[in-house]
Formats: sequence, structure tokens, C-alpha cells
Amino acid sequence: MTESTRQVSVDLGERRYPIHIGRGLLARRDLLDEAVSARQVLVVSNEVVAPLYLHTLQEALGDRRFAAVTLRDGEQEKQLAAMLPVFDELLVQGFGRDCQIIALGGGVIGDLAGFVAATYQRGVAFIQVPTTLLAMVDSSVGGKTGVNHPRGKNMIGAFHQPRAVIADLDVLDTLPDRELRAGMAEVIKYALLGDREFLVWLEDHLDAALARDGDTLAHIVERSCRNKAAIVAADERETGQRALLNLGHTFGHAIEAARGYGDWLHGEAIAAGMCMAAELSARAGWIDDADCARATALIARAGLPTRPPGDIGPERFREFMARDKKNRAGELRLVLLRGLGDAVVTADYPEAALTATLEAASHG
Amino acid sequence: MTESTRQVSVDLGERRYPIHIGRGLLARRDLLDEAVSARQVLVVSNEVVAPLYLHTLQEALGDRRFAAVTLRDGEQEKQLAAMLPVFDELLVQGFGRDCQIIALGGGVIGDLAGFVAATYQRGVAFIQVPTTLLAMVDSSVGGKTGVNHPRGKNMIGAFHQPRAVIADLDVLDTLPDRELRAGMAEVIKYALLGDREFLVWLEDHLDAALARDGDTLAHIVERSCRNKAAIVAADERETGQRALLNLGHTFGHAIEAARGYGDWLHGEAIAAGMCMAAELSARAGWIDDADCARATALIARAGLPTRPPGDIGPERFREFMARDKKNRAGELRLVLLRGLGDAVVTADYPEAALTATLEAASHG
Repeated sequence: MTESTRQVSVDLGERRYPIHIGRGLLARRDLLDEAVSARQVLVVSNEVVAPLYLHTLQEALGDRRFAAVTLRDGEQEKQLAAMLPVFDELLVQGFGRDCQIIALGGGVIGDLAGFVAATYQRGVAFIQVPTTLLAMVDSSVGGKTGVNHPRGKNMIGAFHQPRAVIADLDVLDTLPDRELRAGMAEVIKYALLGDREFLVWLEDHLDAALARDGDTLAHIVERSCRNKAAIVAADERETGQRALLNLGHTFGHAIEAARGYGDWLHGEAIAAGMCMAAELSARAGWIDDADCARATALIARAGLPTRPPGDIGPERFREFMARDKKNRAGELRLVLLRGLGDAVVTADYPEAALTATLEAASHG
Repeated sequence: MTESTRQVSVDLGERRYPIHIGRGLLARRDLLDEAVSARQVLVVSNEVVAPLYLHTLQEALGDRRFAAVTLRDGEQEKQLAAMLPVFDELLVQGFGRDCQIIALGGGVIGDLAGFVAATYQRGVAFIQVPTTLLAMVDSSVGGKTGVNHPRGKNMIGAFHQPRAVIADLDVLDTLPDRELRAGMAEVIKYALLGDREFLVWLEDHLDAALARDGDTLAHIVERSCRNKAAIVAADERETGQRALLNLGHTFGHAIEAARGYGDWLHGEAIAAGMCMAAELSARAGWIDDADCARATALIARAGLPTRPPGDIGPERFREFMARDKKNRAGELRLVLLRGLGDAVVTADYPEAALTATLEAASHG
């Protein structure tokens, strides 16, 4: 059976680009010819993904000059030093400003390769080929690129939009279960922050998604991308509502930084972070306890953690949260819920509700 | 005597910014209050400049939260690794996306601090306070930021415009003679590439400039900035005529890379590179030998080299020039002269003229 390809457009004027969603896309020469105008192409991938899919992609790129850099896998690789071998290869190959970079991998590869593309010769074009659910529904879309710093996640980076995103659903077949569940955290995020209808749908279809039903996953990727594309198009540089996409991330980034990158998966940390945001919203009286429980229950059903590790403690949480990029003039801004499917960015929450949430999280 | 402050505007729409040129500007609170909206300020400087001017600048910044990072001096410091202590300090201080970075130094500090500003939390505002003639007339204006890679100059970077440039002519009093002359190379560049009237003026006033006559230097900085601002405003991202500013730079960057950064000053390499560009233009029959000699004579009068080091050789020149950012699809593009004050960017020159120029350069 040939399924149709779905397409979502990220509407950024002259930097508008398509997200292609479907099966067998990695082998589709027509799609790559449309996306890759360059004659010189460098693919950045990792040691897990490259053996599975690099060859297919190379074939589909035809007779272009082709080079590839394979990095180690994992969030701990997302650092400035890991960019050096990519710059080296670009220069050894003699690739010019008219080359293109293709990110073939999950969020780490996409963010790092995108930042290389943003900065090589002050900017070259790039294509996202996400190979995890999380990258398909979140990190490959919207142009945020960058690397971590030991003192904070994504602290070094640039806004640099891809020319296209190619989400080949076939690659999800080889995705480990833990990674699929981590991706569901970002999917649930879109529902909680602004798409209540999708929340109800997810409650009905979560089991089918976790069982990797094809149509269900296709719908999930498309709906998530539509949600993200709409927010990015309205606020590309995150001067306002784009910060809503950070639901669960202020707590989640603190968990990742406190545990050391790579211990908890990003999606797992965000899952616990969303539960904390819901709890704080309930403690502030903005949502009722039933709504908080409903959000937490969906996250639990996805096999994701609903509580942070018990050993971080309120002080370290606050220390890491103080470095969040949303903060202004030293004020801690959070994404909280005023309802299911209705998030706000605010520094105007009861301080006691935050304290109680952090303390509850620290006592097993 | 109080001299008036001159002002040149770089006209980039909503990213328009002023270049202030005058004496005593570093101590001018009104100017800094206008340029620095932030309450958190990090100054990046080097070990030579900081002891001379950091205190004055700090005083003028009033009661803002102030931090400073002092790097070693020299082109060899302009690399990714040297950015790390700056990111560290920003994060240790807990500075947010609404902080501002001030570059207090020459071209190396301006390029590196500007690139930190372009990438810290995906971009914060910055101010250029150039302390060399070269930085005042060239590198502080136009938003090119970045660092070198062992395989090529400025290969990693971003376009990121400053909010203001503050060129305090007083700091030129402490500038070593060799640095002043290196700056004159970029001044002469503007005359040769597009301002014949300025060329004639320079031939008359070069001695006064080298003797550091105040009015003469003020005019030189202003006229150079006007030339640069006009070109940058017309082509911010170097899709066309901005490449003219690279007169002498394809040869010059090859000299710097071949010698190892820091051996020849950037301005010295560019001086020899401009003489090579003039020679190639004469060999191609585009300018006559008298014009070539006139350009070379002015460069020599400024105490600058008119020939590259004899030990590089045509092959290594070509190897380094092949990595130039102007190249497209493997074609070597050069900035050449069709007259004094009339440069073009072209790949359409006689190959034999390039070969002869490179060979002549290699035989002392």
C-alpha cells in the first residue's frame, strides 16, 4: 500500500519551508532534488543512525559531491567541541558557501548540524532529516539550533531555519521504545499548551501510537508539526508566544543539567517538568486538581516519568532554573496552565506555589 | 579645545545604528546610556587594552551590573576555544538574553565578542568600542563576526550587527606605530575600490596621518566608515557588491593562513594582497602599469609590505585561496581593479595573469 505524503508549511515569508511527512521519503530523489539545490552536500549523522540510513540517503542524492561525518550518539555529544570535526570535513572537502548540510538523526544531530550550518562561512543552507519521533515533532522544526554548555542547556546557538524537513515515518520502525515514549512527551506538550481537541484524541489513541500504528503516528506527527509551525510563524525569534513551547522545559532543563546530560532523555525530563508545571498551576488555583491529575495520567500512560529524581532538591532546581533563557532582569518566568490546552508565560505566579512544588518534588 | 563628535549612520532599516567618532567618547555617560539599554553588561577586552581603558569604560557605565573577561592579545587567539571563558563568565554571572556585550579592543576582540553575542542564548545585543585604527575603519562596522579555523580565516561566524560603534580617537594615541600602519591598509582599500577622490586626498595627507594629526585621523575614520556603511547598507549579507570590501583579502588571507596567524598583521597581509590584485589587474590589461605603480607606491609610503613572503609558492597560495568564502561551485573569484577607485568581483580574469602573479610573488 502506498500512503500519501502529508505536507505542512512553516510560513516564514521568503524563508517559508515544507515539512514532508510520509513513508519511503529517504529514497525519494524527487523530494531531495527539490530540497537540495547544492552540488556539494555534507551529511551529519551519528553512529547509530548512519549504518541504517546513510546509504539510502546517499543513493537518493545522486551524483552530487557527497561527504559525511558520523558523530557519537547522545546528548553529552551536543557541545562546541563536537562541531570541530564537522568544520574540519567541510574545509578538507573545500565546500563553499553554496554547499548544503543535511542533519540525519535525532534532536542532538539536528541542533548541532544546524548550528554548524548557521556558522560555517557565516551561514549555509541545511535540511533536517529527523530520525526520532521527538525530532520529527519538535526539534527539526522552527530553526532553533545550538549546543549545550556545562552550565546550561542550549546556551550557545543561533536561529537558522532549514530549507526543508523530511520526516520519513519508516525510520520510526527502528526507534527504541524508550525513544518513542520520550518523543510522546513533546506530542502531549502541544495538546496541553494549546490544542485541547488533540488532547482528547490522544487520550483515545495513545495505545495505538505506542503500538506504532502507522496512521496514528502519521496523524501525530502532522498535528504536532501544524501546532509548532503556527506558533513559529507567529513568533520566529521567541519575543512572545513561542515561549509557550517551553511548557515543562524550565523544570526539565534543570533536571537534565542537574543529572548530567544523557542520564534522563530530554523527553523524559520534559515529561516530569510538565507534571511539575501542572502541579504548580493547580497549587496556584489556575487549574483544578482533576485537570492536573488528567494531564499527569496521560503522561504516565505514555510510560514517562511524572516526578523528577528525588535527589535534586529545591536549591539546585532554583540554581539551574535561574539560567533559563526566558528569564528577564533576574525574574524567573515559567510556562504554566490556565486550563488544559491553555498555557501562559508568566512571572506572576504565587512564589509559595513554586516553593511547595519544588519541595514536594524533593521528598520521594 | 573640544572637538565635535562626528556621526555616521549604518542604514539597515530597523537594525540601523550609529558610529560615533570623536575624542573622549569612552568617558561619555550620555553616549553609553543611549547605546547600552541593558542593566547587565559584559565587556570583552584583551590584556593590552584592558589596563589602559577598561576602568574608564566601567566608570561611564554607572551602576549597571558589570563583568569583564580579558583575553590574550593576538590573531592566534581568535578561535572557538577562546570563546569558552566568555560563555563561562556570562553563565556564572547569570546574565540573561537581555544583557549586552561590549567589545573593547581591536578586530580580534570585536569579531570574537560579536560572535559570542550572536550565539549566547541565540543572540544578545552588543556594542563595538574599537581601539585600533583597523577596527575603527573596518572590522567594527558591518556585523561580520567570527573566529578562524586552522584551515582558513573567519571560516566560523555569523552576521550580527552591533547596536552602536563608539570610536574614541584618543585611544589611537597609545596604538603602536606598526598597528597604525596596518590600519592604513584598510583605509587605502576604500580609496582603491571605490573612492578615487579619497585616493587623491590620501596621497596628500598620508604623512600627516602617520604623524597622528588629529583632524587628519578623524577625517580618515569618518570617510572610511561612510564608504563601508554605504556598501553594507546596500548588501548586508554579501550576496553581491559587499564582496568588493575583500579587495586584497583573498591573497591576504592566504598569506595569513600560510604564515600562521599572528606573524603578519592582518593589515600587512592585506597590503601585500592589494598589490598582488593590482598587479594581476595590470597583467590582465585592465589597468595600466602606471596605475598599478601608483597604488603600490601609496601602500609603500604607508610603511606596509608590497610583496608577500617569498616562501609561500604558487601551489600553497592556490590551496589557501581555494577555501575563500567568495568562491562558488569551485570557481576562484577575486576582487580586481578596472581602474583606481573602481573594483569588481569576478572569476573572469585570464588564468595566465593569476599564474604569473603568483609566480612573480614566489621569486624574491
